[in-house]
Amino acid sequence: MKAHVYVTLKRTVLDAQGQTIAEALKRMQYAGIADVRQGKYFLLTLEDGLDPVAAEAEVNRIAREVLTNPVIEEFSVRIEF
Amino acid sequence: MKAHVYVTLKRTVLDAQGQTIAEALKRMQYAGIADVRQGKYFLLTLEDGLDPVAAEAEVNRIAREVLTNPVIEEFSVRIEF
Repeated sequence: MKAHVYVTLKRTVLDAQGQTIAEALKRMQYAGIADVRQGKYFLLTLEDGLDPVAAEAEVNRIAREVLTNPVIEEFSVRIEF
Repeated sequence: MKAHVYVTLKRTVLDAQGQTIAEALKRMQYAGIADVRQGKYFLLTLEDGLDPVAAEAEVNRIAREVLTNPVIEEFSVRIEF
Protein backbone atom coordinates (compact mmCIF):
# COMPACT_ATOMS: atom_id res chain seq x y z
CA MET A 1 0.00 0.00 0.00
CA LYS A 2 1.36 3.40 -0.96
CA ALA A 3 0.32 6.89 0.10
CA HIS A 4 0.96 9.97 -2.01
CA VAL A 5 1.05 13.27 -0.11
CA TYR A 6 1.06 16.56 -2.03
CA VAL A 7 1.96 19.71 -0.11
CA THR A 8 1.48 23.12 -1.71
CA LEU A 9 1.57 26.70 -0.55
CA LYS A 10 -1.88 28.08 0.17
CA ARG A 11 -3.44 30.01 -2.70
CA THR A 12 -3.09 33.22 -0.70
CA VAL A 13 0.66 32.80 -0.19
CA LEU A 14 3.03 34.22 -2.79
CA ASP A 15 4.89 31.40 -4.55
CA ALA A 16 8.07 33.13 -5.72
CA GLN A 17 9.64 29.87 -6.91
CA GLY A 18 6.62 29.02 -9.05
CA GLN A 19 6.55 32.55 -10.53
CA THR A 20 10.22 32.29 -11.41
CA ILE A 21 9.63 28.99 -13.23
CA ALA A 22 6.64 30.47 -15.11
CA GLU A 23 8.71 33.47 -16.23
CA ALA A 24 11.61 31.23 -17.26
CA LEU A 25 9.29 29.04 -19.33
CA LYS A 26 7.95 32.13 -21.11
CA ARG A 27 11.48 33.37 -21.82
CA MET A 28 12.36 29.92 -23.15
CA GLN A 29 9.45 30.09 -25.63
CA TYR A 30 7.31 27.35 -24.11
CA ALA A 31 3.73 28.20 -25.01
CA GLY A 32 0.42 28.13 -23.18
CA ILE A 33 1.50 28.33 -19.53
CA ALA A 34 -0.51 30.84 -17.50
CA ASP A 35 0.81 30.04 -14.03
CA VAL A 36 3.10 27.65 -12.15
CA ARG A 37 2.99 26.71 -8.48
CA GLN A 38 5.59 24.48 -6.92
CA GLY A 39 5.04 22.10 -4.05
CA LYS A 40 6.42 19.00 -2.42
CA TYR A 41 5.55 15.41 -3.05
CA PHE A 42 6.02 12.53 -0.61
CA LEU A 43 5.63 8.87 -1.49
CA LEU A 44 5.06 6.84 1.67
CA THR A 45 5.33 3.06 1.42
CA LEU A 46 3.23 1.50 4.16
CA GLU A 47 3.93 -1.78 5.91
CA ASP A 48 2.00 -4.83 4.75
CA GLY A 49 -1.11 -6.01 6.53
CA LEU A 50 -2.31 -2.65 7.81
CA ASP A 51 -5.99 -1.88 8.13
CA PRO A 52 -6.76 0.50 5.22
CA VAL A 53 -8.93 2.86 7.26
CA ALA A 54 -6.41 3.10 10.11
CA ALA A 55 -3.54 3.52 7.63
CA GLU A 56 -5.32 6.37 5.87
CA ALA A 57 -5.98 8.09 9.20
CA GLU A 58 -2.31 7.68 10.18
CA VAL A 59 -1.10 9.10 6.85
CA ASN A 60 -3.42 12.08 7.23
CA ARG A 61 -2.05 12.62 10.73
CA ILE A 62 1.55 12.49 9.47
CA ALA A 63 0.74 14.88 6.61
CA ARG A 64 -0.96 17.34 8.96
CA GLU A 65 1.47 17.18 11.88
CA VAL A 66 4.84 16.62 10.18
CA LEU A 67 4.90 17.20 6.44
CA THR A 68 2.86 20.40 6.26
CA ASN A 69 3.38 23.82 7.81
CA PRO A 70 -0.27 24.71 8.46
CA VAL A 71 0.43 28.44 8.55
CA ILE A 72 1.34 28.65 4.87
CA GLU A 73 0.75 25.21 3.34
CA GLU A 74 -2.07 22.80 2.62
CA PHE A 75 -1.95 19.13 1.65
CA SER A 76 -3.87 16.43 -0.13
CA VAL A 77 -3.48 12.67 0.25
CA ARG A 78 -4.09 9.83 -2.17
CA ILE A 79 -3.93 6.22 -0.99
CA GLU A 80 -3.07 3.52 -3.52
CA PHE A 81 -4.14 0.01 -2.49
CA MET B 1 -6.98 23.17 -17.76
CA LYS B 2 -4.38 22.20 -15.18
CA ALA B 3 -1.36 19.94 -15.45
CA HIS B 4 0.17 18.19 -12.44
CA VAL B 5 3.83 17.19 -12.82
CA TYR B 6 5.43 14.89 -10.24
CA VAL B 7 9.22 14.61 -10.24
CA THR B 8 10.94 11.96 -8.13
CA LEU B 9 14.42 10.59 -7.83
CA LYS B 10 14.88 7.36 -9.79
CA ARG B 11 14.46 4.19 -7.71
CA THR B 12 18.18 3.48 -8.08
CA VAL B 13 19.22 6.86 -6.63
CA LEU B 14 19.67 7.17 -2.87
CA ASP B 15 17.05 9.53 -1.42
CA ALA B 16 18.75 10.78 1.75
CA GLN B 17 15.99 13.30 2.46
CA GLY B 18 13.29 10.63 2.26
CA GLN B 19 15.29 8.31 4.53
CA THR B 20 15.71 11.07 7.07
CA ILE B 21 11.95 11.69 7.11
CA ALA B 22 11.25 7.96 7.48
CA GLU B 23 13.65 7.70 10.44
CA ALA B 24 12.20 10.83 12.05
CA LEU B 25 8.66 9.44 11.74
CA LYS B 26 9.78 6.21 13.43
CA ARG B 27 11.44 8.16 16.26
CA MET B 28 8.25 10.19 16.64
CA GLN B 29 6.23 6.97 17.11
CA TYR B 30 4.22 7.17 13.90
CA ALA B 31 3.35 3.59 12.97
CA GLY B 32 3.27 1.59 9.77
CA ILE B 33 5.68 3.53 7.54
CA ALA B 34 8.16 1.30 5.69
CA ASP B 35 9.75 3.88 3.41
CA VAL B 36 9.51 7.54 2.38
CA ARG B 37 10.67 9.12 -0.86
CA GLN B 38 10.49 12.86 -1.45
CA GLY B 39 9.96 14.54 -4.76
CA LYS B 40 8.76 17.78 -6.30
CA TYR B 41 5.30 18.72 -7.43
CA PHE B 42 4.45 21.36 -10.03
CA LEU B 43 0.95 22.63 -10.73
CA LEU B 44 0.85 24.24 -14.17
CA THR B 45 -2.21 26.29 -15.05
CA LEU B 46 -2.63 26.32 -18.83
CA GLU B 47 -4.11 29.12 -20.89
CA ASP B 48 -7.72 28.77 -21.99
CA GLY B 49 -8.65 27.47 -25.42
CA LEU B 50 -5.65 25.21 -25.95
CA ASP B 51 -5.96 22.01 -27.93
CA PRO B 52 -5.83 19.24 -25.26
CA VAL B 53 -3.51 16.96 -27.25
CA ALA B 54 -1.07 19.76 -28.08
CA ALA B 55 -1.21 21.03 -24.49
CA GLU B 56 -0.40 17.59 -23.11
CA ALA B 57 2.54 17.26 -25.50
CA GLU B 58 3.83 20.70 -24.46
CA VAL B 59 3.55 19.86 -20.76
CA ASN B 60 5.42 16.60 -21.31
CA ARG B 61 8.12 18.54 -23.16
CA ILE B 62 8.42 21.08 -20.31
CA ALA B 63 8.57 18.28 -17.72
CA ARG B 64 11.26 16.43 -19.66
CA GLU B 65 13.39 19.40 -20.73
CA VAL B 66 13.06 21.82 -17.81
CA LEU B 67 11.56 20.36 -14.65
CA THR B 68 13.41 17.04 -14.55
CA ASN B 69 17.11 16.20 -14.38
CA PRO B 70 17.07 13.05 -16.54
CA VAL B 71 20.29 11.74 -15.02
CA ILE B 72 18.78 11.15 -11.59
CA GLU B 73 15.07 11.95 -11.83
CA GLU B 74 11.93 10.71 -13.52
CA PHE B 75 8.54 12.36 -13.88
CA SER B 76 4.88 11.65 -14.37
CA VAL B 77 2.21 14.00 -15.68
CA ARG B 78 -1.52 14.18 -15.02
CA ILE B 79 -3.71 16.55 -17.03
CA GLU B 80 -6.95 17.79 -15.48
CA PHE B 81 -9.50 19.08 -17.97
